[in-house]
Formats: sequence, structure tokens, C-alpha cells
Amino acid sequence: MSTETERRDEVLSQSPVGFIDLRSDTVTRPTKAMRSAMAAAEVGDDVYGEDPTVNLLEASAAQIFGREAALFVPTGTMGNQIAIRLHTQPGQEIICESRAHIVDWEMAMAAAFSGCQFRAVAAERGIVTWKHIEPAIKRPTFNNAPTGLISLENSHNMAGGTVTPLAVFGEIWNGAHEMGIPLHLDGARIFNASVALNVPVAVLTSGFNTVMFCLSKGLCAPVGSMLVGSRKVIERGRMVRKALGGGMRQAGVLAAAGLIALEEMPKRLADDHANARYLAERLSGLPQIELDLLTVQTNIVIFGLKERGKAEELVLRLKQRGVLCGTVGRNSVRFVTHHDVDRAACEEAARIAVEEIGKL
Amino acid sequence: MSTETERRDEVLSQSPVGFIDLRSDTVTRPTKAMRSAMAAAEVGDDVYGEDPTVNLLEASAAQIFGREAALFVPTGTMGNQIAIRLHTQPGQEIICESRAHIVDWEMAMAAAFSGCQFRAVAAERGIVTWKHIEPAIKRPTFNNAPTGLISLENSHNMAGGTVTPLAVFGEIWNGAHEMGIPLHLDGARIFNASVALNVPVAVLTSGFNTVMFCLSKGLCAPVGSMLVGSRKVIERGRMVRKALGGGMRQAGVLAAAGLIALEEMPKRLADDHANARYLAERLSGLPQIELDLLTVQTNIVIFGLKERGKAEELVLRLKQRGVLCGTVGRNSVRFVTHHDVDRAACEEAARIAVEEIGKL
Amino acid sequence: MSTETERRDEVLSQSPVGFIDLRSDTVTRPTKAMRSAMAAAEVGDDVYGEDPTVNLLEASAAQIFGREAALFVPTGTMGNQIAIRLHTQPGQEIICESRAHIVDWEMAMAAAFSGCQFRAVAAERGIVTWKHIEPAIKRPTFNNAPTGLISLENSHNMAGGTVTPLAVFGEIWNGAHEMGIPLHLDGARIFNASVALNVPVAVLTSGFNTVMFCLSKGLCAPVGSMLVGSRKVIERGRMVRKALGGGMRQAGVLAAAGLIALEEMPKRLADDHANARYLAERLSGLPQIELDLLTVQTNIVIFGLKERGKAEELVLRLKQRGVLCGTVGRNSVRFVTHHDVDRAACEEAARIAVEEIGKL
Amino acid sequence: MSTETERRDEVLSQSPVGFIDLRSDTVTRPTKAMRSAMAAAEVGDDVYGEDPTVNLLEASAAQIFGREAALFVPTGTMGNQIAIRLHTQPGQEIICESRAHIVDWEMAMAAAFSGCQFRAVAAERGIVTWKHIEPAIKRPTFNNAPTGLISLENSHNMAGGTVTPLAVFGEIWNGAHEMGIPLHLDGARIFNASVALNVPVAVLTSGFNTVMFCLSKGLCAPVGSMLVGSRKVIERGRMVRKALGGGMRQAGVLAAAGLIALEEMPKRLADDHANARYLAERLSGLPQIELDLLTVQTNIVIFGLKERGKAEELVLRLKQRGVLCGTVGRNSVRFVTHHDVDRAACEEAARIAVEEIGKL
Repeated sequence: MSTETERRDEVLSQSPVGFIDLRSDTVTRPTKAMRSAMAAAEVGDDVYGEDPTVNLLEASAAQIFGREAALFVPTGTMGNQIAIRLHTQPGQEIICESRAHIVDWEMAMAAAFSGCQFRAVAAERGIVTWKHIEPAIKRPTFNNAPTGLISLENSHNMAGGTVTPLAVFGEIWNGAHEMGIPLHLDGARIFNASVALNVPVAVLTSGFNTVMFCLSKGLCAPVGSMLVGSRKVIERGRMVRKALGGGMRQAGVLAAAGLIALEEMPKRLADDHANARYLAERLSGLPQIELDLLTVQTNIVIFGLKERGKAEELVLRLKQRGVLCGTVGRNSVRFVTHHDVDRAACEEAARIAVEEIGKL
Repeated sequence: MSTETERRDEVLSQSPVGFIDLRSDTVTRPTKAMRSAMAAAEVGDDVYGEDPTVNLLEASAAQIFGREAALFVPTGTMGNQIAIRLHTQPGQEIICESRAHIVDWEMAMAAAFSGCQFRAVAAERGIVTWKHIEPAIKRPTFNNAPTGLISLENSHNMAGGTVTPLAVFGEIWNGAHEMGIPLHLDGARIFNASVALNVPVAVLTSGFNTVMFCLSKGLCAPVGSMLVGSRKVIERGRMVRKALGGGMRQAGVLAAAGLIALEEMPKRLADDHANARYLAERLSGLPQIELDLLTVQTNIVIFGLKERGKAEELVLRLKQRGVLCGTVGRNSVRFVTHHDVDRAACEEAARIAVEEIGKL
Repeated sequence: MSTETERRDEVLSQSPVGFIDLRSDTVTRPTKAMRSAMAAAEVGDDVYGEDPTVNLLEASAAQIFGREAALFVPTGTMGNQIAIRLHTQPGQEIICESRAHIVDWEMAMAAAFSGCQFRAVAAERGIVTWKHIEPAIKRPTFNNAPTGLISLENSHNMAGGTVTPLAVFGEIWNGAHEMGIPLHLDGARIFNASVALNVPVAVLTSGFNTVMFCLSKGLCAPVGSMLVGSRKVIERGRMVRKALGGGMRQAGVLAAAGLIALEEMPKRLADDHANARYLAERLSGLPQIELDLLTVQTNIVIFGLKERGKAEELVLRLKQRGVLCGTVGRNSVRFVTHHDVDRAACEEAARIAVEEIGKL
Repeated sequence: MSTETERRDEVLSQSPVGFIDLRSDTVTRPTKAMRSAMAAAEVGDDVYGEDPTVNLLEASAAQIFGREAALFVPTGTMGNQIAIRLHTQPGQEIICESRAHIVDWEMAMAAAFSGCQFRAVAAERGIVTWKHIEPAIKRPTFNNAPTGLISLENSHNMAGGTVTPLAVFGEIWNGAHEMGIPLHLDGARIFNASVALNVPVAVLTSGFNTVMFCLSKGLCAPVGSMLVGSRKVIERGRMVRKALGGGMRQAGVLAAAGLIALEEMPKRLADDHANARYLAERLSGLPQIELDLLTVQTNIVIFGLKERGKAEELVLRLKQRGVLCGTVGRNSVRFVTHHDVDRAACEEAARIAVEEIGKL
């Protein structure tokens, strides 16, 4: 563990101030309007359901997604894990894409908290279809862990921010409903998908039993995600949130920022997408890398390095030049555009990246 | 479930604005200074460890408790459950007092997340001593769930805010260390205990492997608790926090309020204690109730009603008179004093309570 | 752990052959008829449901208990833990008596496998009534682990083999059914209770959703217990049995002995009860001990020693005299009568016990 | 669930007597010698460690595998799940091959009991090498579930009974030991691998922390598997066995058969291998199937059907002709040779299979 700790300490010793930070859209800072709203927020004890600003945010989210109810949670991970717990029994399987966030970045909590294992399917560009899912479904038998949940991700982070179209979802909804299998959407970046497809989130997610989406990330709120669904499932979700330690008290201070994130920020995501597209096009022809432009549909650019094992070196080189980005495995690099990196910064980042890739 | 839901809806339909709210110190709203600090807070992505305000709060908490490290968590429940997970293995027992918060108010998470069961001991006024603990310890054998953790609570909420003195802890620390059994303190209200005993928190908690304390409750921060311990245990705790969905992003907006809570607010807890004492003394002689004045050591007053099953009725009567409080089981009632209820309000509450108790 | 291990090794180094073994009825060896049946048993692969002897045993058990179905499991612990898993969700509470086998002797598996915590009630002589249970029931709310199961034990081992009468159960069945809370019976020794009450097991257990009973213990089979219930619950139980590693292959070799245990052995339990009564009456007047004769209703005798902490010493003294028994906590001693200890042996054991108790 | 249940009932309604049963080597019935030994076995209470026949079997297994200790368990699943629990913490990852028995046939217990998720690697013919494992290892970080265990399978059932050679294991042992990651072997059919490689089991498994092997399957015992390892790990394993409900009482009746299985039966596995080879060679040229003869190294033959989705049809056709076998997914069929199917039966089965495959 010491190496990891040291590496992390080293990373942290350099403040990201002054860097062009393309590591993730999670680094977005709250806007001025959000800060003012937080300072002025009317608050109460949300564990008792008495925080008026949280109640307003939950009502607003429910309305936008065309649902009965919504629940404010501190993180997307908690939202996803509440949903997994609500839909499954211990000893079941969850069908998802092999690079899903719930598989790789949620600390094995599907197992550790809900006692379920993944039946992951690998889908090209992360676009899972019913053809992937149907053969992976397992019915209850005396020697098989049965399928308890299908959990999808839109946009799909680790596949490069790719977007699953409505028609593909439609077929999955039909198939799953017919078989009585619940569906959850990890919609951490569902507004990016909605903007890319020009389909309202309520329509794009209507067939899922529950949807989690993030107010942080591209929407810039400092803290918070939402889980939406039926009144009954959200009522149960409130109990699971308490269990996980997500029953915050005067959470209205966060919800005030969340309201602005939810209502004002989706319309600006198109800029992030244009910037990602710009970055991708600047890099795509370089002989040292493999970049599938078809995956660049939202605010994420992932490309592979033809020389294996060079990803970390490139990330360090770029950091020395003032550009922060991240690795995906040992051979790929990810850029994420967002509110705090404008076009000029992306142009600068692209220029530096082209130079440094050229030196590999 | 419907009855519960309805009851809750009914409660929520009445905003507590305008009430003297003695239900809990969790209802405290952030102060003006806290709101200003939140609006101005320097923030970063705390999942990457880059939020300077969170880092400052963690350093400050570690210093005040004389520890190597601290971790900011959204709730006390999450802090306790991280500690339980860190110290135990599934299939072990946790020794605690029978009315401990981790037994009654944390959604069975010691079982659901850490796979442990409680070996609860009933202690007069909640003051657990080594004499209670020692016979409850079980060593690993082929047919016994062994003791994995001793978890205590100071002040002890459900015992009436009672305080365990340093000498009692000292004996427990010695005994447990000798047997190699880890110790956790649920110090949600440890500053109340510290003020009541006039012993610094660092001294009062020095023998515990980990301590959780709350910035909300009496210290008035809107959201947040801390877990303190060795660098190694807190580093592992950071991973468990991520698992539970507590890895918030720009959490500095909350930490800014937390810093004020930690540094400024403990000194005012004596007022809450005096108010609780006042309330208790006003009520203690009434023939309809049983109130052990020896338990009123901090900001909590719990009394029993001699006529069984009348607690909920009294709570409703007081609510109709503008005073909010809560039941403890079916026969007892709890008042909690705090920052948002001053002496005048306590006098008014006492007057009304005396009247309503008289009518029972 | 080393001390425990050493103590165990020391115990094991002395073969119990030649001793009067009153430690438990689990020590009973298979009868000659059982051994012959095992050698001749028709077998198949029970994981595929193809073992004819297992199928016969399951059908026979279902019939005797008036149920649709039954499941053969290797141990009573597995039967209880399957039932707990079938009836509960993680994060719920199980109401039971405070000294129940599932609390003290099943390795915290209600927590470790099913994620549930106990809400244990202390009942005089272990006879839990609806008056104990009703106040312990918790409905689902946002901050409470709700009751998921009521699990009772008849006869109650650690209370001294005491028997809960039919009328007491009847009231509990009514109350629980009205509230929609499932009921499980740990009937490890239900045939002892049935004999003591002179009520058929089918009648005595009719209100429980599931019943576990043991073929080993007083019924003398070498290995095995049964879980009975509706076809649906047992079908699901078959899956949980596979998960726990209880899906044995040619289990017919064990079921053959189980059939004899089930059909032939209950009628001889009255002898064990008479022997226990004899033992208890021989000891009950001794000034060094406290023995509540009212608890001696079946084949178990538990008595306390007035001088605290002397139980282990007495057990060792008796062992040196050729009589094996066990401690219950630090202050009590347990004798269990069974098939392999006849009246003469009990007379000898009583004689020695009176002498050794007299020397304390 | 109903369809599954009906299908199962339909299967069960036809006794396999009179069939050539190639579904699995789990169907082997105990030999005459085993039945005699069971009838005559000296027994005691194995939960107390007092069953002399179990003790003898455990000592014998430990010696054969060159280990300090061994533990008798009712099934291979229980043996594997005990090992997983012993080596891991909740929230960790287990590296294994993607078709491993622990992934597909143990009811998601790695998640449900140990709280771990799989990081499965797909290896050609199931032969996992260090080159597969090393990139899948994850160290503890703040956002990653770390690797807690590497679990391999030899022979590899679902890959066609393939055998991992000693040199491949050697490299894995070195790599894992250097990184401090424990290793478990699912050696359900390790004696088949040992015979195929002509390497003693003690040598072939020496680098694993624990090894599970089955006495049933090819070795013909009716019930039972063993877990071998250091005295310390087995001592802890005894506690986990109790938790899972595997602490059987007079288990010597089963151990007596196990002793014969362990000492007499490995030498006959070569016959099963020759029979499988015979079957595979008879089928391998058929144009309707794909059969990789390189995978036929022990007693298993798996072949694919070129026309997708036909596996179940072929299994039903063969059943109507008196030959039982099983599907692997929707497109493949598995034959397993064993003690109860001699060469003549295999010739008959091959003749019928050739005919029926020809009709597809």
C-alpha cells in the first residue's frame, strides 16, 4: 500500500491551481450563483424531511425526469448502490457492461453491501443492446445465481463518453419488462447523453425503474447526486440512504447549488462536447495513438497509445507542461472537458498534447 | 409501511418554524459566520485529496484530538460504520451498551455492512465499565463468534446524555489493550462530555483506536462528522468512505462551516447544559413522571411517564402548544437543548410542559 | 487464540470412550439399524434431486409436520440460517429470546450471511410470549431497522430444555400473522417438546412459516437436520442450501439413517426426560447449587453454582471421575441425557456429581 | 421460476437408472468397500473434534498434500467458500478464470458471503498464466477495490477438463508471493490433473496457500471434500465451516468412505481419461461440431455445435436414446467419464452420439 500512498501524496503535493485540468468533470468548482444560493439557502433537518431546499430540489428532479419522487444523495456511488440494494437480493447477478463504473470504481460494493456479483458483457463502444443482455440472463435454478438487475450507463464513461440511443434502450426495456427484471440507469452524465441525442432526459430514461444522475460533474454543483423513481422505491431508498450514512442534516446548503445545477447548467454541456470534439480531432491523426472518433460523442476523449505501457509516462509529461489528464489502464489516456476549461484552454492543451505525443 | 409513511407525512406537513424545537440538537441551523465561510470557501476535488478547506479541517481535527489523521464524513453514522468495518471481520461480535446509537439508530448496518452482531450489555445510566465488558468478551473458538470490537458512546444519548468519566475509560482501555481488542468511541457529542467533565477531548479519548465526533448537532455545522485515528487506519477509512458513497467532491463548502463548528462552538455547550439542567429541575418533582436528575449531565433530558404508553400522547400535546420533543420507546420523552433554543425558550417550554404533564 | 486451541487439544487428547458423556445429545452414535440402512441405501445425486432415499426422507418429514415440502440439510445451523435468509432482507431485525441458539452458537451468521441484527428479549425460563414480542416489533421507518422475522426455539436449550406450550405459540402466531411478520421455529429438539407436551409436532408447529428440526441429537442419526415449509419456500431453500455448500451428492447414505431417526426414535425420548428428571431431583437439594426444577421438562438439566466462577472447576472434577458435562457461562453447568446414557449410567453420574458438588 | 421448476421436475421424474450417465462424475455411487467401511466406522462428535475416522481422514489428506492440516467439508463449494472467506476482506477482488466454478456454479457466494467481486480473466483452454494475472492485479487505493486473492482451478471443468502444468503454476506462485497476494486452488479434480501430468498432488499444489479437493466426483465417495493448508488457516477454517453449517456430528460414517476414495481411487482415474479420449476421438471429425482435441486431457469432453442454440435439443435426443449428458451454455455439450461408466458403455454412448449428431 505504501507505493500507492506515496504516489498519491506526490500527486497531491502539487496543487492543480494554474493547471488545465482535464482529469475529470468532477473537478468543476461551484459557480458564483451557486455560492450565493448556498449562503442564503433556507434549511431544515433533512433526516426528518424538513429541509425545504432539499424538498424543492427533489420535487424539481422528479418533475424533470417525469417520476413520482427523487432522493438527494451525497455521491453518485451512493445513488447507484442504493438502487442496487433496492432491486436485488443477495446471491443474484447484475448484468452490466464490462467497463461500467459500478464494476471498476465503486469499491466492489455491489458485492460488499448487496451481496451480488456482476455478469458483465463486453459491448463495442460500450453500447449494450438486448442481444448482449438476453444470453446473459439467468433464471432461478437450484445451482445458478439468477439475474436480479440490469444496470446500464449513459453516457458510458470508460467507453469514451459514448451515448446509447433511445431505440436501443427501448428494445432492452421491452425485453427486461417482459421477463420481470428491473432496470437501473447509472446516468451520472445523463444530461450529456440527452444533449448529444437531443432527447429529453425524461424520455431517454423512461423505461428504467430507477435513474441516478449527478449534480456535480458537468453540472458544476460542489456535492450531490439524485436518485429518481416511484414514490415507493424512493421511500425505501431513503432508508437505505440512512443506512449508508447519507442522511445529512441541513443539506439544503448543498441542494441550493444543486437546484442551479439542475435547472441552469444542462444547456451549457454542448460547449463541453464541442471542446472534446476539437481536442479529439486535433489528436486523431497522430501516428503514435489510436483514437476512435466515433466514440467522441460527449465531453470525454479516450485514446490508446500504440506503444504499450506508455500511458502513465504521457500523463506525467503533460503534467510537467501544465496539463492534467488521466490514464485508463496502462495503455490509454483520458481527457474530460467541462465548465472550468474553456476553448482557449483546450486549444493550449491540444497543442501541448500533440507535441508530447510526438516525443513518445 | 403505509401508516409510518402517513405519520411521517403528517409530521412534515407542519414546518417546525415558529416552534420551540427540542427534538434534537441535529436541528441546529448554520450560523451566519458559517454561511459566509461556506460562500467564500476555497475548494477542490476531495476524492483526489485536493480540497484545501477539507484538508485544513482534517488537520485541525487531528491536532485537537492528538491524532495523526482525520477524515471528513457526511454523517456520524457513516463515521461509526467506517470504524466498525475497519476494526472487525464478518462473524465477530461488538460489545456495546444496550441502548447505543449503533444498536438502535444505524439501520442494523453493523450486520448489513460489516457482518457483525452486537453483544450488548445493559449499564446503569449507560456508564459501561470494565466489569460489564470483561464477562462479555469471547475468544475465538470453533463454535463461538469472537469479540472483534468494543464500541462505547460518550455522552450516551439514550441514557440521557450521561457522561463516562476518564477513570472508567482508563480501566477499559487497559483491559482491552491487554487482550488485543480494538476500541472505538462514538463521540457524536464528545464535546458535551468534555465540557461536562472539564477534560480536553484529546485526553478523554486517548485510549480509543478511533473516535467519531459530529460537527453538526451541538456544534451547529449543517453537515458533517469526523473520524480520527492513526494515519494508517484513516487511510483505510478513506477507502471505506468511498465504498459507502461518502467521497464527496468540493466538500470544502461544508468543511468551511465545520472549521468554525470545531473551533468556535464547543465553548458555548455549557449554556445548553445549563438549559437542560433548568428544564430537568422544573420537571423533576412532578408526580406523573420519573426523572433521574443524576442523568442530566449535558444537554439531554429524558424522563419516563408513570402511566405506561403515554409518551406519544404527551409529545402530540406539546406540539399543539408549540413545543417539539420526541419519544424514547413508548413510555419516555426526550428534550434536547441546543444553540437555536435560548434560555427564554426553555423557560417557555418548561412552563408548557409542566402544564401538559399535569393534565395526563 | 492459542489458549483456546490448547484447551481444545487437551480435551480431545482424552477420548470420551469409557466416559458417561452428558455433554450433549449431539454425541449419540448411530444405532445398528441405522448402520445397516446406510450400507444398503439406494442413492443418487441429490443436487439433481435424484437420491431416492433423500426424497423419501423429505416426503416423510413433510408429511409428519403437515407441510408441502422438506429439505435435508447437514446441520441444524444450516437449516436455521437458510430460514433466516429466506424470510429476511439485509438491514432487518430478528426477534428472538436472548439465549437462543441462533444468538449464541451460530457464529453470528444472521449478521454475516443475512445482514440482520437481533432484537433479543429476555424471557423467564425462555418462554417467549406475545407480551415480550409485541413491544419489540419495529415497523419500517426512515431511521429504524424494521422487524423481518420472529424466530423461536422449542425446546429452549440454554433455558434448560424448557418447553413452550401450544397456547403461548397460538397467541404469537395470531399476532405475527396479523402484522405480516414471518415466523421460524428452531425446533432442533421439537420432538422433545412434543413428547413433553403430548402434542404432535404438526400441531405444535403449525403456525410457523418454517420449522427446522434435527435428526441427530436425541433421534441419534449421525448427521442431518430438516427444514419444512411450503413448496415455494423450500424450493428457494434448496438454492440457499447450495449456496451455503450443503448440496451433498449421494446423501442417501445419511438419509437412510435419518428415516429411522424420524420414524423410530421419537418414542424413546420419554426415557431421556425421565433420566433428566432423576438427575435433577438427585441434585436439587444440594446447598451449593441453584436448580429450578420447573425448568427440567425434557432432557436437559442446567443448574447454577452459588459460588461464582466455579463451573469450569466442577466440569473438570467430574471429568476426572469419568462424567462429562459442560459449562453454561462461568457459573452454570449443563447435563443432557440421551440414547447412549441409560438409567444406570445416570445413577452413577448423579452419585459422582453429588459427591463432587459437595466438595466445592 | 415456474418453468425452471417444471423442467427440473420433468427431469427428475425419470430415474437415471438404466441410463449411461455422462452428465458428471458427481453421479458416482459409493463402492461396496465404501459401504462396508461406512457401516463399520468408528465415530464420535466431529464438532468436538472427536470423530476418530474424520481425524484419520484429515491426517491422511494433510500428509498426501504435504500440509500441516486438513478439514473435512460436506461439499467442494463449501471448501472453496471457506477458503475465499479466510483469504479475503469484504470489498476486495478475486482474480480467476472467467469460466471458473466459483464464478458460474457457486451461487454468487464470493459476493453474498465474503463481499468480494471477481476480476475474471479469459484464458485460452482455461490455462491462466502470470501474463493474464499480473495486469489484473489492483493495489489498494482510495477508489479501487484491491486484489485480495488469486483462485485457480485444476483441472478446469468448463474449459474441458484442461490441466495447468506445474511450470505455469510455478511462475504464478512466484509472482503472487512476491506481491503478497494469497493463492487458492479449486482442486475439485486435482487428482485428474495429477494423473494427467504424472506429478504428485503435493508437488502440483505446493505453492497455493490452500487447496480444496473432492472425495466425491471421480474418487466415488458419496459425500465430502477436503480443504488443506497450514494448521493456522485450517483452525480458522473450522470456525468458518461451523458458520456455514458444515459442522456435522458423527461424520465418520462419511469419512470412512472418504478414506477409501483418497487412498484407493486416484489410481483408476487413468481409465476415465482413456474413455474420455476415446469418446472425443470418435466425435472429433463430425462436421456438425467443433471439438478441440487439445482440451481433452482428463475425463471431460466439451464440444460446440456449429448450428447455434442446438445444445439442449441434442441433450434431449441423447436422453431418449439412453445417454445422459449436459449442456454448457446454449451451444455446447459436455460428457464426463467416471467409475460408473465403463469402456463398453462409452462405446455405446459414442455410437449413439455419432448418430444423433448426424441428424442435427
